[in-house]
Amino acid sequence: MPKTTKKKPAAEPTGAGGWLTYRPDLKVLDCTIRDGGLINAHKFSDDFVRVIHAAALAAGVDYFECGYKSSKRLAKCADYGPWKFCDEADLRRVFGDEPDQKMKLCVMADAERTDFHADILPRSESILSMVRVACYIHQMPTAVEMIRDAHDKGYETTCNIMALSTIQEPELRAALKLLATTPVDTVYVVDSFGSLYSEQVRDYIRLFLAGLGNAGKQIGIHTHNNQQLAFSNSIEAVIHGVTMVDATIYGLGRGAGNCPMELLLGFLKNPKFEQRPLIECIQQHLLPLSKQIDWGYSIPYMISGQLNRHPREAMELREGPKKESLLEFYDKMME
Amino acid sequence: MPKTTKKKPAAEPTGAGGWLTYRPDLKVLDCTIRDGGLINAHKFSDDFVRVIHAAALAAGVDYFECGYKSSKRLAKCADYGPWKFCDEADLRRVFGDEPDQKMKLCVMADAERTDFHADILPRSESILSMVRVACYIHQMPTAVEMIRDAHDKGYETTCNIMALSTIQEPELRAALKLLATTPVDTVYVVDSFGSLYSEQVRDYIRLFLAGLGNAGKQIGIHTHNNQQLAFSNSIEAVIHGVTMVDATIYGLGRGAGNCPMELLLGFLKNPKFEQRPLIECIQQHLLPLSKQIDWGYSIPYMISGQLNRHPREAMELREGPKKESLLEFYDKMME
Repeated sequence: MPKTTKKKPAAEPTGAGGWLTYRPDLKVLDCTIRDGGLINAHKFSDDFVRVIHAAALAAGVDYFECGYKSSKRLAKCADYGPWKFCDEADLRRVFGDEPDQKMKLCVMADAERTDFHADILPRSESILSMVRVACYIHQMPTAVEMIRDAHDKGYETTCNIMALSTIQEPELRAALKLLATTPVDTVYVVDSFGSLYSEQVRDYIRLFLAGLGNAGKQIGIHTHNNQQLAFSNSIEAVIHGVTMVDATIYGLGRGAGNCPMELLLGFLKNPKFEQRPLIECIQQHLLPLSKQIDWGYSIPYMISGQLNRHPREAMELREGPKKESLLEFYDKMME
Repeated sequence: MPKTTKKKPAAEPTGAGGWLTYRPDLKVLDCTIRDGGLINAHKFSDDFVRVIHAAALAAGVDYFECGYKSSKRLAKCADYGPWKFCDEADLRRVFGDEPDQKMKLCVMADAERTDFHADILPRSESILSMVRVACYIHQMPTAVEMIRDAHDKGYETTCNIMALSTIQEPELRAALKLLATTPVDTVYVVDSFGSLYSEQVRDYIRLFLAGLGNAGKQIGIHTHNNQQLAFSNSIEAVIHGVTMVDATIYGLGRGAGNCPMELLLGFLKNPKFEQRPLIECIQQHLLPLSKQIDWGYSIPYMISGQLNRHPREAMELREGPKKESLLEFYDKMME
């Protein structure tokens, strides 16, 4: 069984000591390889994964997401790199048989795209510590089954409800009520489309805390940078009581990317966090990568974020020859 | 005399109607040419200034800042473009003798660097409507004299207290008390170093409103993007009651740049604002410019912002051959 301490979520801070104290229960999760894998079909080299892992570990990060546990019936192995599947053998080849437990390893398992019964091993046979179940709202029944399965196998669990900004509130309340009855440890506010403003983040956190706090669940936040709000929305969520924050080194991630880890750790006051290993990693590995693959804030992503839409059209534009045809794209999206 | 309506600053919004209403008293100021001029010695071509002006006008922006009114004793004309001085003849050549009054023209006048008695003409002889007096805290006496001079000549006025994050609170309170006795219309919270977090912005706005609200002064916000917080801090300021917000098209401005106008207008609900002219202008003029001169978020600016330091060292790095020596820069700055 995982050593999960069930804590009542932190109350909203009262201000006075806010700049001089820190919350030791606040955990940071690095999803550079997992979210970044969405832009290169998960084809990171073993060496690249190792340096990202080493930088996150040296920076004091709490959790490291290795990739997805995708079904090999639905996705062909030949089309993707190993971080689409995170086979135990691949994990052990890169992270060793006894990875440093200061930073726990986790994977993301998409509802309806994971053969979880077979592919998620018992915790005692894996170097993973946590399974993050990602789902759309209509997939909640499957997600709950996956959470129970992972919990019973001995893992910490999270539930990441995607595309939150498209869900009607009564349905969301029902989902939270359902999750309160499960063994899930942390439920995430996920801004998949980078469309949320700070007041909306605050309102979601309050809604999640109201629905889940008494059941002893923690709240997490995962943001995208379509409107240059990924970092500020993460701060807003911290202020209002989340205890798990996702970030990626240099913001590497699908589309406009995620909350940059270097900004987040510059903000958090816990002295265990170190920014320097991230700066070194950015210089040596992320700057070169940024010349090969495209991510980060740009006008097409701003437009899809403001329209609360999936970034797929914007990603297509950025990858094609009409990358700079901003007005044509804007007009098409506004139709 | 300028037609300035003295209003009590807006109270903090109560939430409920927040997403469906807008504040008609909220004004947007474009400082693309003024702040952008700090990275090219104010050498924008007349045509470039015209297209930026046209885009801002079409987008529904309220004020357009043309540049500085710098002393020709202190800065040689040969070293700079015309927007360092904003001579009336240059303004009229570009904007005409009767510019559209839907968007008012203004200039920035730095305390102790402006021959304001001579160089700021009576309002009746100029196409300018507003003078923005920028000062450091120790220059307040000069700033007050400049504000009175500009007011007496018939202009709207603002006071932009720079490098706010370096001022001790008792001194700041004294400055606000002094400004409350002047005819200044708007006093700005200026995050010169891009170092402020949202809670600090909120606290400054509250302090400014408490010190100036009863005197009928409005509050403005000017941000820099060192920590990817320029837009979110501007939103935070709007939520807490500012009525004047600075932004620049595509974030063009010194160092990490400013709050991007396209993001700001995408957020504001007043139907008079149009995003499309900005998208067109970015495609045609800002994307090409971004390949010639350097601005916007990068790690060196993040570092100077987090350290609450002037961006000059970061600008030097970005302009030199060691642009990507991030770790060496980090270590030097942390010494």
